Amino acid sequence: MAYFTKRYHPPGTAPGTLTAHEAHPTRPLRLRLMEFNATLLNEREEIPLPECKTYLERDSITWIHAYGYASPELLRELGEIFGLHPLALEDVLNTGQRPKLEHYDHQLFAVMSLPAWRDEELGIEQVSLFFGKNYVISFYNGDNDPFEPVRKRLRSGGRLRGRGADYLLYTLLDVIIDQGFPVLEELGEWIEDLEDELLDVPSKQTLAQIHELKRDMLLLRRMLWPQREVINQLLREDQSLIDEATRPYLRDCYDHTIQIMDLFETYRDMAAGMMDVYLSSTSNRLNEVMRVLTVIATIFIPPTFLVGVYGMNFANMPELHWRYGYLGSWLIIIAMIGGMLLYFKNKKWF
Amino acid sequence: MAYFTKRYHPPGTAPGTLTAHEAHPTRPLRLRLMEFNATLLNEREEIPLPECKTYLERDSITWIHAYGYASPELLRELGEIFGLHPLALEDVLNTGQRPKLEHYDHQLFAVMSLPAWRDEELGIEQVSLFFGKNYVISFYNGDNDPFEPVRKRLRSGGRLRGRGADYLLYTLLDVIIDQGFPVLEELGEWIEDLEDELLDVPSKQTLAQIHELKRDMLLLRRMLWPQREVINQLLREDQSLIDEATRPYLRDCYDHTIQIMDLFETYRDMAAGMMDVYLSSTSNRLNEVMRVLTVIATIFIPPTFLVGVYGMNFANMPELHWRYGYLGSWLIIIAMIGGMLLYFKNKKWF
Amino acid sequence: MAYFTKRYHPPGTAPGTLTAHEAHPTRPLRLRLMEFNATLLNEREEIPLPECKTYLERDSITWIHAYGYASPELLRELGEIFGLHPLALEDVLNTGQRPKLEHYDHQLFAVMSLPAWRDEELGIEQVSLFFGKNYVISFYNGDNDPFEPVRKRLRSGGRLRGRGADYLLYTLLDVIIDQGFPVLEELGEWIEDLEDELLDVPSKQTLAQIHELKRDMLLLRRMLWPQREVINQLLREDQSLIDEATRPYLRDCYDHTIQIMDLFETYRDMAAGMMDVYLSSTSNRLNEVMRVLTVIATIFIPPTFLVGVYGMNFANMPELHWRYGYLGSWLIIIAMIGGMLLYFKNKKWF
Amino acid sequence: MAYFTKRYHPPGTAPGTLTAHEAHPTRPLRLRLMEFNATLLNEREEIPLPECKTYLERDSITWIHAYGYASPELLRELGEIFGLHPLALEDVLNTGQRPKLEHYDHQLFAVMSLPAWRDEELGIEQVSLFFGKNYVISFYNGDNDPFEPVRKRLRSGGRLRGRGADYLLYTLLDVIIDQGFPVLEELGEWIEDLEDELLDVPSKQTLAQIHELKRDMLLLRRMLWPQREVINQLLREDQSLIDEATRPYLRDCYDHTIQIMDLFETYRDMAAGMMDVYLSSTSNRLNEVMRVLTVIATIFIPPTFLVGVYGMNFANMPELHWRYGYLGSWLIIIAMIGGMLLYFKNKKWF
Amino acid sequence: MAYFTKRYHPPGTAPGTLTAHEAHPTRPLRLRLMEFNATLLNEREEIPLPECKTYLERDSITWIHAYGYASPELLRELGEIFGLHPLALEDVLNTGQRPKLEHYDHQLFAVMSLPAWRDEELGIEQVSLFFGKNYVISFYNGDNDPFEPVRKRLRSGGRLRGRGADYLLYTLLDVIIDQGFPVLEELGEWIEDLEDELLDVPSKQTLAQIHELKRDMLLLRRMLWPQREVINQLLREDQSLIDEATRPYLRDCYDHTIQIMDLFETYRDMAAGMMDVYLSSTSNRLNEVMRVLTVIATIFIPPTFLVGVYGMNFANMPELHWRYGYLGSWLIIIAMIGGMLLYFKNKKWF
Repeated sequence: MAYFTKRYHPPGTAPGTLTAHEAHPTRPLRLRLMEFNATLLNEREEIPLPECKTYLERDSITWIHAYGYASPELLRELGEIFGLHPLALEDVLNTGQRPKLEHYDHQLFAVMSLPAWRDEELGIEQVSLFFGKNYVISFYNGDNDPFEPVRKRLRSGGRLRGRGADYLLYTLLDVIIDQGFPVLEELGEWIEDLEDELLDVPSKQTLAQIHELKRDMLLLRRMLWPQREVINQLLREDQSLIDEATRPYLRDCYDHTIQIMDLFETYRDMAAGMMDVYLSSTSNRLNEVMRVLTVIATIFIPPTFLVGVYGMNFANMPELHWRYGYLGSWLIIIAMIGGMLLYFKNKKWF
Repeated sequence: MAYFTKRYHPPGTAPGTLTAHEAHPTRPLRLRLMEFNATLLNEREEIPLPECKTYLERDSITWIHAYGYASPELLRELGEIFGLHPLALEDVLNTGQRPKLEHYDHQLFAVMSLPAWRDEELGIEQVSLFFGKNYVISFYNGDNDPFEPVRKRLRSGGRLRGRGADYLLYTLLDVIIDQGFPVLEELGEWIEDLEDELLDVPSKQTLAQIHELKRDMLLLRRMLWPQREVINQLLREDQSLIDEATRPYLRDCYDHTIQIMDLFETYRDMAAGMMDVYLSSTSNRLNEVMRVLTVIATIFIPPTFLVGVYGMNFANMPELHWRYGYLGSWLIIIAMIGGMLLYFKNKKWF
Repeated sequence: MAYFTKRYHPPGTAPGTLTAHEAHPTRPLRLRLMEFNATLLNEREEIPLPECKTYLERDSITWIHAYGYASPELLRELGEIFGLHPLALEDVLNTGQRPKLEHYDHQLFAVMSLPAWRDEELGIEQVSLFFGKNYVISFYNGDNDPFEPVRKRLRSGGRLRGRGADYLLYTLLDVIIDQGFPVLEELGEWIEDLEDELLDVPSKQTLAQIHELKRDMLLLRRMLWPQREVINQLLREDQSLIDEATRPYLRDCYDHTIQIMDLFETYRDMAAGMMDVYLSSTSNRLNEVMRVLTVIATIFIPPTFLVGVYGMNFANMPELHWRYGYLGSWLIIIAMIGGMLLYFKNKKWF
Repeated sequence: MAYFTKRYHPPGTAPGTLTAHEAHPTRPLRLRLMEFNATLLNEREEIPLPECKTYLERDSITWIHAYGYASPELLRELGEIFGLHPLALEDVLNTGQRPKLEHYDHQLFAVMSLPAWRDEELGIEQVSLFFGKNYVISFYNGDNDPFEPVRKRLRSGGRLRGRGADYLLYTLLDVIIDQGFPVLEELGEWIEDLEDELLDVPSKQTLAQIHELKRDMLLLRRMLWPQREVINQLLREDQSLIDEATRPYLRDCYDHTIQIMDLFETYRDMAAGMMDVYLSSTSNRLNEVMRVLTVIATIFIPPTFLVGVYGMNFANMPELHWRYGYLGSWLIIIAMIGGMLLYFKNKKWF
Repeated sequence: MAYFTKRYHPPGTAPGTLTAHEAHPTRPLRLRLMEFNATLLNEREEIPLPECKTYLERDSITWIHAYGYASPELLRELGEIFGLHPLALEDVLNTGQRPKLEHYDHQLFAVMSLPAWRDEELGIEQVSLFFGKNYVISFYNGDNDPFEPVRKRLRSGGRLRGRGADYLLYTLLDVIIDQGFPVLEELGEWIEDLEDELLDVPSKQTLAQIHELKRDMLLLRRMLWPQREVINQLLREDQSLIDEATRPYLRDCYDHTIQIMDLFETYRDMAAGMMDVYLSSTSNRLNEVMRVLTVIATIFIPPTFLVGVYGMNFANMPELHWRYGYLGSWLIIIAMIGGMLLYFKNKKWF
């Protein structure tokens, strides 16, 4: 994942300008609509835009899920139909936003991030949510549909059906936030694997892995902290939009964000010390190798000097003609080597 | 202890859903009930669920201690009898929660963590407490029974008997929190042992130990900080649930959490510097070894060159035929070695 | 860029004293004036000072952009005409100020910083803004004109024309702040390049680059944090100067400063770990080299000793006359070398 | 000093339980009483307990100083006579408490720590103070009597005699806090000595010293921060116990705690960088040694090879029979050595 | 500069006690008085103490500047004449105080620190200021007179003459605080020089310099932070002492303290990374040297073994008698050396 993923307009562009990022989007925007209350459930796929409007005027709860790539024209049209603020639409289009909550008149606009592992890579995708008295509009640009379990629950008619749009909003936010648990679980396993590797036989790949881990955690962190703030802001919201009965559920959701942050920070502390352990571990390994090698070399250097002495060609070297000269030289050599071995062993140098 | 110990539902599950984590629990849930006031004490083991209900309707204080593994069905039943919130029950079942205090109508729900050393390993177990006007319900999943001393005090009829359920709650919290002292005492001894080892002869095992120490401290910390917050929240509680007379005791309990945190943070600072000392210490040791070895090698290399010179087979080498040539070469060699030894000694290189 | 770029008077100078920093400014100050409202647009270049005054007395919005080097005399004259506070003028002249917002009676004075990459070097230039009921005066000392897109929008007559001076102020601030995005984008690419280099083949230049990166980030940071504070202060401003309708735009601008800071802090964390990776990476590389070299040397030292033995000139060395003595010595040598190679290979030393 | 010095009861013990820590205390508790007002001064040593009570009922100020080891029985008796809270008495007995201030009805209870160097070792002793309308009771377990100067001032009849018990309390706290200055002075000297050693010739002992310094500072810090908080809380106290005229003195005392903390934090920053300097310094020293040694070895290895060449016994080696062969070989050797020396010198390798 | 520069009384001394620190002060205290208002200016040197009193009773503004060493007797006398609080006088005498602001009835007492480079050494001197309705009394113990520019401005009769004592106080504080700019400018140059040295050829002196830099910055920091707080407190002062018209000037002064702190913190971050760069840089240099040296040694060791083989004296060594034996051995040697050179070159080892 690249570091700079935020899309932005050239400085000086008028605010609320919508510019296309993809010339020919492979997956154009589609709408999926669900209308429900305790007794009724309407589900429609690929509904044309103008028809949506009629649903919002009814008493029932309407959830419009827009997925795929939103072209500027379509967004502008959508914005006009549902009364969405141009600055909010700009944030829907320019993905890579930081999670946040904004108020526009009688509408709340939330940007959330959905983390997921895809092919061993951490990906973060943006979910944009508009929330009003009797509707929720969600935008999602990614491949998977994280909200399928919610649709199932709606169809099977649980508590969700009897509650208002605020409870639907809570349900969607809860899905997004709980996605953090499996991501952190996998992260935890990665860390444990890395630690075992670190203390066992760290390699050059280990270093690259630690680096990648840290980078992924930085990216994850940028997303987790503001997410918690979004839920917190919702909790401090006045009661016109969020019902009193939904609050304990939002509080539970907030508690989850705290647990996720808490666990995440613990992981961060663990990852923080890894580089030190890596350095210690590789330096330990080198020390061991170098010490043994140097001991071997050192042990043979003085005897090599000695045999050099008796390899000299001086005419007058009495030892050369002694009877046990050669034997004696071997004895001296063995004594030298043995002495050094004992000394080094004693000093625990190898 | 694994890093990720939190149990969670798949994202999208309806809130308050209770799912089984163990198919065939080895130790199914049992209830131990104590009913008491200043004059009365009833103690019952393995009481059937519906009977419990009757106790709660009396004026006396009832303490129900549930131990062993709680199956979803049982919990649901319990929840209905005692009016426990489904979100709270979810937290009882999904152990590995972060300590916290929640309000549900006229009930307080506290999650606490009980640390303990088991076979040289730090373990952290969850205790869940429900607290109302005249009852405390405690859930504990572990092996030991930490509350046995409380039961003894109840039987022997001390101050505890004459006080309300809030004092019982304080007593249980106090037991849980004071468990931190022996754990920290052992941690302190471990740190002292490690430091001695560090400055003396650090080995590869020392590195693994430092790493394990740091990990255990991270896990401990995740539990200690929120625990302190729980007591603090209780202190800020309005007086309907916590009696004025119990407050000095809760304050004392809060003071204990501060002392524990304070000591813990001191340990953390101590542990933080260990890796540096380890690196210094091992690098010091290597330096010493390498220096001596290299000095030995260096001292013998020039003489070895010299004896090589007189081992050459040139036809015309006048020195070889000098009378004191051989003796002279020895003198030169001794002078070389001696000179170098003096120089290195002078420079304090060995 | 030098570290100390702030211009200051000798301590003890009277406050509000304006002193020349350039004796013969190469680019003397010039004024560019735009007067507009929903229906009218006047644009004038290099307008003489006294004439400006008349514009401020009209109902339309006037924007005076002063660029080039402001001499003390000119500034003093300007100050008198527009009623600018001497302490503010001192800050206009003594560039290198920290971004800030000051109130002087019915005037706001903002100092902002404009970052830009010029020839691979990060440069930071000061923009000073005076803002009153119906005028904005901007001072800019640099080469480029960052406000050209605003002028274009004014000429093409968008929303900007129908709004007040507060919206013009917002537009100028927005231009300055959004300049952070391309700067951060380039910074992000630099960091990615450096990281690839780090894990691949770090050189001495890499170290200098990391150092330069860190320095640039420190300088950037000094400017980004207070800039955010300026927008925040404007948002908390009472409504006499900033219109209610302009607030959502300022809030959007504030959101941009948060996104910039957030991304910047992520980069900082990334840069923070680089030195460790560099150290690990170079030490890894050295380890590899030294290990192989030492293994080679170590392998040949014992055989060298052995051949030295049989190079001795003792009269009585029976092995020398054995039939397969020479062959035997080779076999021993090969056995020694092979044994060591196997041992080292086994220990994964090379 | 051990890390874990806090005394605690086994978890589950009833609050306020007093347990003996010494079976046969070597120095049993003794009481020293001073009664005074502007005109009167009574001083009594080893006064029996019940007699104390009568003093407290008078209008004059009474100061009871209890020193030596307090047995649980004695403490309980004392507590009953003076109306001391059992939780406070528990803290008097279980020394090693964190400094704190507690309110019990019309009584303040303060735990303070007294640092001192004893035989080059930093020791921290607990002083417990009870303070009411007209009395101060102080408990001190250590060897020296830190309050002797106060007694002298009382006898000589200064301002102290004319003031209330709150001024006496201030005086005692001031003595305890000012004890920090000589302790920090000695700490400062220790740090300066260590730094000189660090940059000069760091040894293994230096590492142990740095470690000890850091440990002592951690222990000191745990005591200094809460001490400051105690004085701060006293300052925020309502005026029933602390007179308005005593406040400037308490504020001065608070200012001293700030100065001590401030200096202490500066020392901590200094100590923090020491390990880095130590590592740099020892690695510098090793570098220097290794470089020179390796240069020596490297210079002699190629000539050794060359003389080996002419030590070969090939039948057909023309150079061996050249007239100036031997001289030539010496010239080549000298050229080799000289060339390398020049090259290394040039590269500043030694 | 020593670390512990604070002067203090032995613990237990009565508060407000003034003790002599110099037996025979070389520069006894002298007074310099200036009385002024918009129309009048009186300047007197070495005025006797009692005469000062009369000036304070007039309507004009009086500034008494006391320089040199203040003996306890003189201070006591001064204190009585001007009504200075004994605790404040203690702080005047015991120099080395932390900057602070104190209120005593209708008087403000400020302790400020004046940093300056003297002979390449950073010195910090204390300035004590008493400020009342119509007077300022300043104490300064150092060599230079930092307030001479203020005197000049008074004589030349600028704005200063027409304002009250609060503006004079501001002017003196401004002089003291602006002294930070030249000090930081020099610090910045020092840092830039050190960084160039670091990346170029770091020596042992560089390490000592970094250490000294860090120490100086720590001492500077201890003084800068509280100084900022003093100005901030003055700004929050009620309007009886500080006039509304003086506030913008004080705010400007506060802005300077913020700029100084901001720059200082940037420097600190720069200095923080220096040790790492130093370590990297020296280790890089060592790596380079060691690698080249080891490569040289390694290249010659195998050929040395080979020539040793043909220096053996076995009776039966067929190669020795081959016609091209000697030539062949040279070819093998050259092949060995060349092969190794190619291999090492290929691996970029030198």
